[in-house]
Amino acid sequence: MSSGPVPHMSPDEFREHGRRVVDWIATYWERLPTLPVLSQVSPGQVRAGLPGTPPRIGSHGSLDALMADLDEVVLPGITHWQHPGFMAYFPANASGPSVLGDLLSSGLGVQGMLWATSPACTELEQVMLDWLVDLLGLPAAFRNDGAGGGVIQDSSSGANFVALQAALHHATDGTSVTDGVSGSHIVYASSQTHSSVEKAARMAGLGSRAVRTVNVDPATLAMVPAHLAELVAADRAAGLVPAMVAATIGSTSTTAIDPVAEIGAVCRQHGVWLHIDAAFAGVAAVSPALRWINDGVADYADSYCTDAHKWLLTNFDATAFWVRDRRHLTGALSILPEYLRNQASDSGTVVDYRDWQIELGRRFRALKLWMVIGWYGADGLRAHIEGHVALAQELAGWVEADDRFEVVAPHPLSLVCLRPRWPGHEDEEADGLTMSVIESLNRSGKVFLTHTKVAGRAVIRVAIGAPATTHEHVQDVWNLIRAEVAAHS
Amino acid sequence: MSSGPVPHMSPDEFREHGRRVVDWIATYWERLPTLPVLSQVSPGQVRAGLPGTPPRIGSHGSLDALMADLDEVVLPGITHWQHPGFMAYFPANASGPSVLGDLLSSGLGVQGMLWATSPACTELEQVMLDWLVDLLGLPAAFRNDGAGGGVIQDSSSGANFVALQAALHHATDGTSVTDGVSGSHIVYASSQTHSSVEKAARMAGLGSRAVRTVNVDPATLAMVPAHLAELVAADRAAGLVPAMVAATIGSTSTTAIDPVAEIGAVCRQHGVWLHIDAAFAGVAAVSPALRWINDGVADYADSYCTDAHKWLLTNFDATAFWVRDRRHLTGALSILPEYLRNQASDSGTVVDYRDWQIELGRRFRALKLWMVIGWYGADGLRAHIEGHVALAQELAGWVEADDRFEVVAPHPLSLVCLRPRWPGHEDEEADGLTMSVIESLNRSGKVFLTHTKVAGRAVIRVAIGAPATTHEHVQDVWNLIRAEVAAHS
Repeated sequence: MSSGPVPHMSPDEFREHGRRVVDWIATYWERLPTLPVLSQVSPGQVRAGLPGTPPRIGSHGSLDALMADLDEVVLPGITHWQHPGFMAYFPANASGPSVLGDLLSSGLGVQGMLWATSPACTELEQVMLDWLVDLLGLPAAFRNDGAGGGVIQDSSSGANFVALQAALHHATDGTSVTDGVSGSHIVYASSQTHSSVEKAARMAGLGSRAVRTVNVDPATLAMVPAHLAELVAADRAAGLVPAMVAATIGSTSTTAIDPVAEIGAVCRQHGVWLHIDAAFAGVAAVSPALRWINDGVADYADSYCTDAHKWLLTNFDATAFWVRDRRHLTGALSILPEYLRNQASDSGTVVDYRDWQIELGRRFRALKLWMVIGWYGADGLRAHIEGHVALAQELAGWVEADDRFEVVAPHPLSLVCLRPRWPGHEDEEADGLTMSVIESLNRSGKVFLTHTKVAGRAVIRVAIGAPATTHEHVQDVWNLIRAEVAAHS
Repeated sequence: MSSGPVPHMSPDEFREHGRRVVDWIATYWERLPTLPVLSQVSPGQVRAGLPGTPPRIGSHGSLDALMADLDEVVLPGITHWQHPGFMAYFPANASGPSVLGDLLSSGLGVQGMLWATSPACTELEQVMLDWLVDLLGLPAAFRNDGAGGGVIQDSSSGANFVALQAALHHATDGTSVTDGVSGSHIVYASSQTHSSVEKAARMAGLGSRAVRTVNVDPATLAMVPAHLAELVAADRAAGLVPAMVAATIGSTSTTAIDPVAEIGAVCRQHGVWLHIDAAFAGVAAVSPALRWINDGVADYADSYCTDAHKWLLTNFDATAFWVRDRRHLTGALSILPEYLRNQASDSGTVVDYRDWQIELGRRFRALKLWMVIGWYGADGLRAHIEGHVALAQELAGWVEADDRFEVVAPHPLSLVCLRPRWPGHEDEEADGLTMSVIESLNRSGKVFLTHTKVAGRAVIRVAIGAPATTHEHVQDVWNLIRAEVAAHS
């Protein structure tokens, strides 16, 4: 083997190129409103713009060619989630402080799988999760100084999965770890629960058939606790083992909020693990006026997750996940090969977060949360959330005042689900027109909206929450929707 | 609700603060050699240095307080994985181009769960995974233009888990998705296989008891195919279903390399999914001289993973994962709620990577791989790998030439496992001395080494691979080890 010198980027080169990239991002944020929010490329177009094989000789010394391709090949293929007209799905907030926190994490390049592999990575995370308990008014039982604790997961999909692992450990007194699942463990969710709960049941070896669909109230789309009680009782009578109920605070489709206290009472009666998926909505509790969304959590939740990376100005990934009793979580997920043994872990005085998650490796994600909370403060985060909620309430008012439209679901937060009435059209035809309106609007490049179905009918979701979205943008979107519906009528 | 203005960081403020953070990182890299590689803090020390509650008013406008805490509270709690004396575990390479690619990803702040949510995020990833097939000499069947394909996973732990999901789908003709696992599915690994394989079996509902431990050759620590064949035959005779064999290329303990071709022949005979965990070592095949490590992969591997975030200059997380036939992977992991339906996905002309992983959400991780490959080129990456391998071979030579030491396992790559002989001491006492040597060296702040056990005996792992590690540092470590052993003798 003969190897030449390795063309590393020197610290001075990093200073130079780093400034260029920082400037590129700042300029990107400035020109966002001028870009089409939904990418207009065809399948294969980005791929076709790139070389089919990797370069033998690198560009070392220059980023020119890469930055040119970024502008010319990659950028047209980007759907701009930070665009003020992005009102699809749920937001995925970025922010300056968060980007810089993540940059520090990359530069430090440490692993936090064990306390010992970088104590600050674990301890800053513990402090940030405790701060979030405080900011969101969550129960003290979730704090790291007791039997519970918090940890950053990659997403609520992952959090829902590890919650199920803990629930199965709880339901089997730990035998799931050695003996596996028996086919008799049941998970309860509603038709409005995020698909990741069913995916978790599949991945955990239970299969979709272990997932019971609890009825929802047709008006609120919230889980019906009485039906949950019936299902749980029937399963127990049949010799099955209810393992976990997944209740949702702020469903993906319409931000429906399940009645946690009543659901919790059913869980307590039957000894079932109650997991709360508050992926999008949970962070709204940073506003004291919205803290009611978590009613029941303090008394009943065994685990809880919410995404700082959706609506709390923190780049993906940063799901906050808490458990009331960490023994079931670490019981399910801990495994200790010889090469990871160390004095600190053996002493029992530290937390090793590898035992709280699917993966072994983990980045220093607490840095971005720290930067965000430190920069905005509780008041700034609250203003961010409350501003979007106020915009959504104003939009809902406009929709309700226009008899060509209806608001189709409660809108306690920043998502408004609406439907043109399409008088004179049958349901299926009307739904086709609604979908066509969405497609036309998305092709315009001014806004990106997605749909869902409520009571079987297609509806338009207007999900407000990009940091750049202001009153003016919401007004524009409402005008665009009305004009497009008029053009389709 | 009354909300004040939201104190966002403006693009101009981001330019200013971004330059400061870039400079901080460059300076950090420059002063790395002067810092103690292993953090010397006590449990709770970092936590005690931070406020117990979040600030009500943020620092907006200034990063001064946060950067001061970074230096004074966080940094002392960092174990420096980029330090030239970091030779513990395996390396976790960062590099300038990678950090900048990740920075671009944070600034763009897009989600790649569907092709439609940012086509470039999916297509650049497909191109990068195809480039890696080329760079590493992996089989064309892994390329995205056929029945197989590649994807970035968060870590090899996650890759091993989704490989098992695909294997169970394969073993059950897809019924695992609906009916769960039956308790009859078996996974085969060796005593040297990474613990994440057993953890995957637990999380998939099989339990640890479904994991068979295949014998290893005592000299090479590689899996014994004949023993695998025996175990598989015995399980089949007992009515059990062999679902997956996990073969390792470059074990975590000693970089042992399992004989993939012979293992593959057993798998083929019995229709068992062969997954290859090449987490650390796989990227070494960027050197043509080391491409032999993948012998057998082209003919037999159903899935394969290797971490660009360990030894290929790409920040965590960036595991490259390939499958020969993607149908079993997406069959196991695809789930489609209404709110994610879109024309591009319905058309079948695009790949939606949410169906290839545990989570729904995903960052634009291909950008950092693109920056790394573009900056270094194939030749630069090869020089990086070959340089470390040469250093390790030189170290092994020094150890072998010193009769107070022995090299305890093959060292084909950049890890050398060695043991002081401790003449006159019983095994247990000798192991205690070896551990004490490691602890003393780690307390010195000059080097960080970890241990493993080989044939029941404690050994010192010297894992070379930090970008900053040079010939001089390896020489220093060898001198430090010898001096410390002399002091203990």
